[in-house]
Amino acid sequence: MGQEIERKFLVANDGWRIGATSSSLLRQGYLSSNAKATVRVRSKNDEQGVLTLKGKTEGISRSEYEYEIPIEDARELLAMAEPLVLEKRRYIVPFGGLIWEVDVFEGRHAGLVIAEVELDSEDQAVQLPDWVGVEVSADERYFNASLARSDGVPK
Amino acid sequence: MGQEIERKFLVANDGWRIGATSSSLLRQGYLSSNAKATVRVRSKNDEQGVLTLKGKTEGISRSEYEYEIPIEDARELLAMAEPLVLEKRRYIVPFGGLIWEVDVFEGRHAGLVIAEVELDSEDQAVQLPDWVGVEVSADERYFNASLARSDGVPK
Repeated sequence: MGQEIERKFLVANDGWRIGATSSSLLRQGYLSSNAKATVRVRSKNDEQGVLTLKGKTEGISRSEYEYEIPIEDARELLAMAEPLVLEKRRYIVPFGGLIWEVDVFEGRHAGLVIAEVELDSEDQAVQLPDWVGVEVSADERYFNASLARSDGVPK
Repeated sequence: MGQEIERKFLVANDGWRIGATSSSLLRQGYLSSNAKATVRVRSKNDEQGVLTLKGKTEGISRSEYEYEIPIEDARELLAMAEPLVLEKRRYIVPFGGLIWEVDVFEGRHAGLVIAEVELDSEDQAVQLPDWVGVEVSADERYFNASLARSDGVPK
């Protein structure tokens, strides 16, 4: 098992674009998002499949189990997860010695842009780039499983 | 993906015991069992871990995806699934050219014994051994996910 510790921010402007080094198209769907566990299936560039189980969120941490699966399985499981599916393009943006991920949502969530940074510990100091806005780490509306259930971008 | 087609019976007597060729102790827990998918984690003899996703049941068939996972992960995921966990000893019993599995439940389901046989097609002819009783293939009370939620043996 891994431990996922991450902070999440709305994006204030396009400043991150000049620092982006690569991107990939993610489709992800939710087969379960109850109190016990979130079960997520994801395809990356329609080439790689990953199944992820996440435990309950505690602060900004949660346990995480990740398994590679055949892309054919991922496609079928994404179909099974409909309509709890979302699509986003993820840009990798190194900044201040950390790897930021900027997610530009597509489809019914178009217009939403979220920046995430994964940390080694909850109290790790983070240098914030000037293109990030409000922190939404604890805002359930911005959990991906919540977005998958919603009709559009949170107001 | 695989397709799981199986028939399930209560066991009428102990006649199966002389035909049993091996057995293993299964612990299995449910991280999700909603309309979309059942997500099951299983340990076998506390040595092997398997994660299984099953789609909606249609008649006696359902789609099934199975992935081996590290035993440490299986143990942690079983803890996460509590109290939706059940334990049984599974005996392998070849009969009439097919492999029957006889599950002897333990813990709060002690006394329950179920025989299952996996088929290649829904209309496959099956020679029934004389130790099987009532067929419960379509009886939701005997679905393992239902048993995991229940306090004991169905009346």
